[in-house]
Amino acid sequence: MINVGIVGGTGYTGGELARLICNHSGMDLTAMTSRGNAGKPVSSVHGYLKGYVDLDFKSSIDGDEDVDLVFLATPHGVSMEHVPHLLDMGLKVVDLSGDYRLDDEAVYRKWYGKGHEDQDNLAKAVYGLPELFRDKISKAQLVANPGCYPTASILALAPLYAADLVDGDVIIDAKSGTSGAGINPTARTHHPNCGESVIAYNSGKHRHQPEIDLILHKLGGGGDVYFSPHLVPIISGILASCYLDVKDEMTTGELQDLYSKFYSGERFVHVTEEGSIRDVVGSNHCQVAPVCMGGRKVAVFSSIDNLVKGASGQAVQCANIMCGLPEGMGIDFPGLGV
Amino acid sequence: MINVGIVGGTGYTGGELARLICNHSGMDLTAMTSRGNAGKPVSSVHGYLKGYVDLDFKSSIDGDEDVDLVFLATPHGVSMEHVPHLLDMGLKVVDLSGDYRLDDEAVYRKWYGKGHEDQDNLAKAVYGLPELFRDKISKAQLVANPGCYPTASILALAPLYAADLVDGDVIIDAKSGTSGAGINPTARTHHPNCGESVIAYNSGKHRHQPEIDLILHKLGGGGDVYFSPHLVPIISGILASCYLDVKDEMTTGELQDLYSKFYSGERFVHVTEEGSIRDVVGSNHCQVAPVCMGGRKVAVFSSIDNLVKGASGQAVQCANIMCGLPEGMGIDFPGLGV
Amino acid sequence: MINVGIVGGTGYTGGELARLICNHSGMDLTAMTSRGNAGKPVSSVHGYLKGYVDLDFKSSIDGDEDVDLVFLATPHGVSMEHVPHLLDMGLKVVDLSGDYRLDDEAVYRKWYGKGHEDQDNLAKAVYGLPELFRDKISKAQLVANPGCYPTASILALAPLYAADLVDGDVIIDAKSGTSGAGINPTARTHHPNCGESVIAYNSGKHRHQPEIDLILHKLGGGGDVYFSPHLVPIISGILASCYLDVKDEMTTGELQDLYSKFYSGERFVHVTEEGSIRDVVGSNHCQVAPVCMGGRKVAVFSSIDNLVKGASGQAVQCANIMCGLPEGMGIDFPGLGV
Amino acid sequence: MINVGIVGGTGYTGGELARLICNHSGMDLTAMTSRGNAGKPVSSVHGYLKGYVDLDFKSSIDGDEDVDLVFLATPHGVSMEHVPHLLDMGLKVVDLSGDYRLDDEAVYRKWYGKGHEDQDNLAKAVYGLPELFRDKISKAQLVANPGCYPTASILALAPLYAADLVDGDVIIDAKSGTSGAGINPTARTHHPNCGESVIAYNSGKHRHQPEIDLILHKLGGGGDVYFSPHLVPIISGILASCYLDVKDEMTTGELQDLYSKFYSGERFVHVTEEGSIRDVVGSNHCQVAPVCMGGRKVAVFSSIDNLVKGASGQAVQCANIMCGLPEGMGIDFPGLGV
Repeated sequence: MINVGIVGGTGYTGGELARLICNHSGMDLTAMTSRGNAGKPVSSVHGYLKGYVDLDFKSSIDGDEDVDLVFLATPHGVSMEHVPHLLDMGLKVVDLSGDYRLDDEAVYRKWYGKGHEDQDNLAKAVYGLPELFRDKISKAQLVANPGCYPTASILALAPLYAADLVDGDVIIDAKSGTSGAGINPTARTHHPNCGESVIAYNSGKHRHQPEIDLILHKLGGGGDVYFSPHLVPIISGILASCYLDVKDEMTTGELQDLYSKFYSGERFVHVTEEGSIRDVVGSNHCQVAPVCMGGRKVAVFSSIDNLVKGASGQAVQCANIMCGLPEGMGIDFPGLGV
Repeated sequence: MINVGIVGGTGYTGGELARLICNHSGMDLTAMTSRGNAGKPVSSVHGYLKGYVDLDFKSSIDGDEDVDLVFLATPHGVSMEHVPHLLDMGLKVVDLSGDYRLDDEAVYRKWYGKGHEDQDNLAKAVYGLPELFRDKISKAQLVANPGCYPTASILALAPLYAADLVDGDVIIDAKSGTSGAGINPTARTHHPNCGESVIAYNSGKHRHQPEIDLILHKLGGGGDVYFSPHLVPIISGILASCYLDVKDEMTTGELQDLYSKFYSGERFVHVTEEGSIRDVVGSNHCQVAPVCMGGRKVAVFSSIDNLVKGASGQAVQCANIMCGLPEGMGIDFPGLGV
Repeated sequence: MINVGIVGGTGYTGGELARLICNHSGMDLTAMTSRGNAGKPVSSVHGYLKGYVDLDFKSSIDGDEDVDLVFLATPHGVSMEHVPHLLDMGLKVVDLSGDYRLDDEAVYRKWYGKGHEDQDNLAKAVYGLPELFRDKISKAQLVANPGCYPTASILALAPLYAADLVDGDVIIDAKSGTSGAGINPTARTHHPNCGESVIAYNSGKHRHQPEIDLILHKLGGGGDVYFSPHLVPIISGILASCYLDVKDEMTTGELQDLYSKFYSGERFVHVTEEGSIRDVVGSNHCQVAPVCMGGRKVAVFSSIDNLVKGASGQAVQCANIMCGLPEGMGIDFPGLGV
Repeated sequence: MINVGIVGGTGYTGGELARLICNHSGMDLTAMTSRGNAGKPVSSVHGYLKGYVDLDFKSSIDGDEDVDLVFLATPHGVSMEHVPHLLDMGLKVVDLSGDYRLDDEAVYRKWYGKGHEDQDNLAKAVYGLPELFRDKISKAQLVANPGCYPTASILALAPLYAADLVDGDVIIDAKSGTSGAGINPTARTHHPNCGESVIAYNSGKHRHQPEIDLILHKLGGGGDVYFSPHLVPIISGILASCYLDVKDEMTTGELQDLYSKFYSGERFVHVTEEGSIRDVVGSNHCQVAPVCMGGRKVAVFSSIDNLVKGASGQAVQCANIMCGLPEGMGIDFPGLGV
């Protein structure tokens, strides 16, 4: 049994981690921290965990816990305060923030607006997308869990980049549910403001753009990635609609074949004909639908649950791999369907 | 032309007032105040008013404006700071807060948690529900515009109280859209929290309960009113579902007749067969659907747009009456339909 | 291992049953029928089951399947065509329709508009609400799984009826998500019609009213039950708001104590302070929040996921009990939380 | 006073036309047809029009009406059955279907799957986008009202095409509310299916693609238009997100200037900084937000209410122009705001 701790357990990804681990037959949740709620029962903050998580929040992981692996569900900039210490304690770490995803300190500085304080570990961290980096994850002590948008986007585009079929730039128009904005109320996520609207934000300026660009270019050549996120009035789920030219004309059938081969054997990635969020909500699955729009223009629609495959589910998937457990343990169930 | 000012123009009711007045052929909006946004263009806060309201927010109405009537879209407790001064200036006032709705200071103190600082005017204020108090409104200098829930609830029950048909207590189970909670983001109105939920709150403890009870008992006898509000994930609209016993069995047909006669000639109240919000959204109309549930048990469903008939539209309706304008001027248009 | 079949697998409850059973460690799903989709893969209809249910739909259960227990996810009136035959084959049956819930044929005829064709089994069927009828369910061959509204309503009111505390009639104002209306598109569930509305329907005329009334009066005395359902724009979940007088004044604290004792030891019923749907969505849990509204007036808010505790989850719970499996097997996980 | 008729008045665009005309000071609605609802009061189908439209539906416009102008709110393929006859009667016609938008019969045949039966008038019809073709509209007897997606898309891109700044292909990723799918319930618009999802459909295959491409290329050069529509769970509104390269790098400021000049003096098009639907819902306004994404990559976000500026509001705008009325008469009001 692997004992795990969650640092930063107040937010949505922290609660979701606890939800997954409480039914995980290879992991025990032994500690959960929250600066603001230390001392309170976890289920007083996450009511749906009543009867499943009987811990009180601690203020920090301080070494006297029975913990083998720690999930950091902390904000960007906070994770790198914790990582060196946790690694020194010999713990495995899966960081859900953006702190260890970009391998170049200058790029980090540009997009996160501050210097990186733990460059040694930045160089050692493995990007936690199992479908692409399973082997490295299995040997890593520190995994940088991908962002929600990058998970959907990279899975959408990896087969084309890996086959060196991309000609020119790629546009990613992504639509996210509001839980992606986190647990703190804001004007943007105030229901009267967002409930019947679609909002474009940070086009070309979102931190997930360099992350997507970096990973895809590790797989193959192709032009720049331009990322344009939108907020839509659903709670959970992301649909990433990706547009690009392939080098030579391909039919939808040829695209579907390429994708089916690329993801053959993958438990959590499915090639479908239509882009839609519904079937993946509540699950760790990703649906990828490549379509020929005419000529060499290709659209790929990729959908995930942003809190599961886009965050906590994938973190558990990585942790399973790191700990030698079956990769799907605790996360291998279908979406809600309705 | 009546010149009007809006005090407290940052919120939803303030914006809605401006929206209605900008197309009102008998009123000009000459001043709009906001403590927090003084100096800024109104349309920088309310983007949809661009091209319609060219004012900048002022910090207060100070007497040098060209104003005949003031709408107070200020919070409870703040309105009574403004009213004495405005009345002294000879202005007509329509107050959208709860400050002047309860005619008994002790009741105000109990439900609003503080003493009333303007008891003289409290005694003079007229309750601004035109369908019941049209004559008094026409002579009033100060009108207390009804709350959103009370508007729906009182219009639902007035015909039965007025005919002295109510036997015992009345239950009002009301469902409100999230705009009723105001413009400030809260945990309750954070989309991930409320977007797929229904939340019961303040059952028997909401300030609108004594308001409904007070007005209905001015019309006739009957037991106590118990009010139970709920938040539902729509932006605009209230459905008040009211349950009671009538003294003698009545069929749905008899109820429909009673209601049709009571509201005969009313432009903004319609007797319908089904309770539903859809048809009234975006309008000043109220739909009332009385139904026999069996025996002497009666249900009455009443729907309004909480920001129009439930707030700003009704305030304009009252102002029209106070100023001798046609009652429906500026607010006589159908709902959106879709 | 219990082999189970699902008859009528095209709809939401059929899909939900399959979703639950595919991760149930004591049950195997060996057959799933659909008249309209016979021959097609189940996952072509329920995309979210891809990788979890590898069956094709059959046209019927005909005896050559390896089946110990059958779930009937068939419409009212259709289940009673199947039940006699399945019972004769020695199978256990959990019927999710309304066909065997009312023990009086005359009442069935009145509310379902047709005679009952299987009165022998009608008399033998056990009402499948484990928290009240666990023992009988454990010995039953045929269980009538409760309706979604009755599950929420009866769990809300059982403690008061059982303690003989109810004085006079009970009003149940229930709010349901749209999945309760089933998989077939209708004008009422067309998104532009329902997406920003609340609709009251069948007040005092819904078939769930006599079902609630029947079961509650088996527990104790009290006046009639009046049931008033509403459609709200959420997909999953029911909040039943129940209003009544208790015989003697009770504080909220006393009510909470009574409920906590009544449901002590129940895995799936929780006494809470606030009525809200959010925490139970995606789970088999029910939250019940009793509140004193003032005087002897009591409100009880009860929330469930209509497709889980209100249908398929409860059906699995009953099947577990009938088969001697742990009651929570396959359904003991928390709600989604977000 | 211009007397107008509406053919095909059962649907959303027909109801919306009636809603606008009933408050239009230069038009009277004298006839409204519906094959399926002939003889019934209009307000029995469109409940929100009660008190505003007192007509019964007729089965057709047959010449004895007092009508100067007809709006065809009929499906594609049906309009061209009506147009020749109506034009022969000397009436002005605004057709809201796609029948007269494509000026090339071969293109029509390809995208609409049938031959065009009224090629003479096809050649004479004027495309009803006032901001681009105001003069032609003023002289036209037959106006082809633009589609909802094309209105948003063309207004987004016209300034760049007209200035010959577009380098290569254009991607339009559009998000539409469900009212765009029309009044008939379908599986796609069934609330449980669409309420928490985003669905991509007809990418590169939608009939609005050639319409957008045709009109933009009348303004200037540039590559092909690729159109990718999505359904989002809002009722009203479209956000079209357009992506392209400009020939030389432009800052967001330069783009804003270009757009502000291009739309200078336009009452219904506003250049904004952020793409969002909220402010235009319920209005005839369009917001256009051009943004530099980096390098020569530009995003333009364009939002409209699909039933107003995207259909019935624009039809009234065209009719005003055709009849010599002030262009904004009856449609010059702000959006709902909330």
